[in-house]
Amino acid sequence: MYLTSITSREIRFARRPEGIPTLETFAMGKVAVPAPPAGQVRVRNIWMSVDPYMRGRMMTRESYVPSFRLGEPLEGGAIGRVEASKCDALAPGDLVQSMLGWREAFNAPPSVLAKVRSTTLPPEALLGVAGLPGLTAFVGVEKVIKPRAGEIIFISAASGAVGSVACQIAKAAGATVIGSAGGAEKCAFLREIGVDHVIDYKAEPDLVAALKAAAPYGIDAYFDNVGATHLDAALHSAKPFARFALCGMISEYNKTEGTNLQNIRLTVTKRLRLEGFIVSDHFDMIPQFVDQMARWVDNGTIKIHQTVENGIENAPAAFLKLFSGGNLGKMLVRLSD
Amino acid sequence: MYLTSITSREIRFARRPEGIPTLETFAMGKVAVPAPPAGQVRVRNIWMSVDPYMRGRMMTRESYVPSFRLGEPLEGGAIGRVEASKCDALAPGDLVQSMLGWREAFNAPPSVLAKVRSTTLPPEALLGVAGLPGLTAFVGVEKVIKPRAGEIIFISAASGAVGSVACQIAKAAGATVIGSAGGAEKCAFLREIGVDHVIDYKAEPDLVAALKAAAPYGIDAYFDNVGATHLDAALHSAKPFARFALCGMISEYNKTEGTNLQNIRLTVTKRLRLEGFIVSDHFDMIPQFVDQMARWVDNGTIKIHQTVENGIENAPAAFLKLFSGGNLGKMLVRLSD
Repeated sequence: MYLTSITSREIRFARRPEGIPTLETFAMGKVAVPAPPAGQVRVRNIWMSVDPYMRGRMMTRESYVPSFRLGEPLEGGAIGRVEASKCDALAPGDLVQSMLGWREAFNAPPSVLAKVRSTTLPPEALLGVAGLPGLTAFVGVEKVIKPRAGEIIFISAASGAVGSVACQIAKAAGATVIGSAGGAEKCAFLREIGVDHVIDYKAEPDLVAALKAAAPYGIDAYFDNVGATHLDAALHSAKPFARFALCGMISEYNKTEGTNLQNIRLTVTKRLRLEGFIVSDHFDMIPQFVDQMARWVDNGTIKIHQTVENGIENAPAAFLKLFSGGNLGKMLVRLSD
Repeated sequence: MYLTSITSREIRFARRPEGIPTLETFAMGKVAVPAPPAGQVRVRNIWMSVDPYMRGRMMTRESYVPSFRLGEPLEGGAIGRVEASKCDALAPGDLVQSMLGWREAFNAPPSVLAKVRSTTLPPEALLGVAGLPGLTAFVGVEKVIKPRAGEIIFISAASGAVGSVACQIAKAAGATVIGSAGGAEKCAFLREIGVDHVIDYKAEPDLVAALKAAAPYGIDAYFDNVGATHLDAALHSAKPFARFALCGMISEYNKTEGTNLQNIRLTVTKRLRLEGFIVSDHFDMIPQFVDQMARWVDNGTIKIHQTVENGIENAPAAFLKLFSGGNLGKMLVRLSD
């Protein structure tokens, strides 16, 4: 019965956004997914991920991943289940991870799928704490910042998929964590995950003063997910020799003009090190990282937090919430049971 | 006869500048320098240094050296000769280095003086290629950038005291050097010292295009003496994983507003490392550095270039030329023979 053709809804890239994307950036489409040809499997997606870096793929300007093409379905991380198999490597019922999100079902060869290894983690964690957002946090904290016990680390967008894991990894390393987020709900969430000093940047527009109150003698490190005024305030607050892990500047993604930094000159006077990193340079760490994360989740060091939207028709809105501040922890879209 | 009192002219800090300093920032004064008291020597300065970092000491805002005090003589590197001695450590005729520039003569204890070691270098080189500007270039190239043979290194303010030495050290390491400076005379000077691609930023206002022409595949490293549009163009031109040594942002020293950077977000996408450094963190290297520099000058690897003004009355103008672009190599003021 799997070998009949089914219909899959998919979200296509309809219009290149200028500035902030809108619902018009996206269009719903439908395609028939026939029985898989020889050597392929048919996958029904269960979970798909929306991530800020996808904004970069909507531009033609240089980025670190190829641009999306107009009229074609978007791409992004997904977890699905094999429904029908015409290959030996995968069997019906197997869970697989792919970059073929933004669609309900598809045929593909095993070469573009990763069979989900059995761990104590729920499978959707592979899109969140044990997936690219978690690995991003891990690399930024452990490989770029390298915290020492007792240091003070400032983390922006601290309630997001990357930030919330970064906060918890930094705490596990013995650091004092200052986290910023926008709004009372997110700030309550930060306290829940153990952040020591919470800055609501919407209620406290003077970030420099807020950092001064939280860390009168300055910060030892900064994990930047925001750029702009957050980066500028962190430069101001930095102790000499502070390390900055620059992970992504969500405030810059939708901008066409540049960034005014009052304090970039302090990079010299304070001998700061600012270092950009991209998670895909560190994919060799994935197996050890997933095992480490499973242990951390098991022993309560890291808590899983996610915001879930249901149905592919809500995927564009879920993506847009990343920029309007509508998620706590990892933002996921559930496509099927 | 040395034991009579003499008159010393000195340059005092008269007015805190807003923006670019002017001659009104300074005032000439005269003091009597009596015979040295017990335990001190009287020094007559021969050479004094003017350096861009002194601009920072004219502000009250945080910097890495203490602020100058209004009404008091300025300070800066100087080479002088002991005229009279009331201590055992130094004898008349000894050459000494101090931070007591901006004055013709002074009394001081040996603890604030360094006897000039005899090398093959002329003594004033201790204020230039073998002094703080040279050490700054050495640290930025050898300790921060760490060039590999065949790499392309962009150096701004390349005709200045630091830049011109940085160019030559980078060449000695086998790098291809792109140097920027303002005006035909400076650009001719850069060609003379072996810079491979010379950018006259006054004739070529589109620095991004100029860098693209010089390095179509991008730069591996950037030695920043300028900040602002130079830094922004270097961010644009950087290859992935490029290293930036941030040495001082002369274009920022006189500014009160911030810096607009179009390309700071590229620090993430290109995984750049931006690292500020200050020469005084590396004073432990001075003896080995001076010996190395003497060898380099002896074997022709590094050529000494300096611009000399005569007489303490011209020290303020010499300092101002650092910001208007009036020096090739190290700017020195000769105070006596």
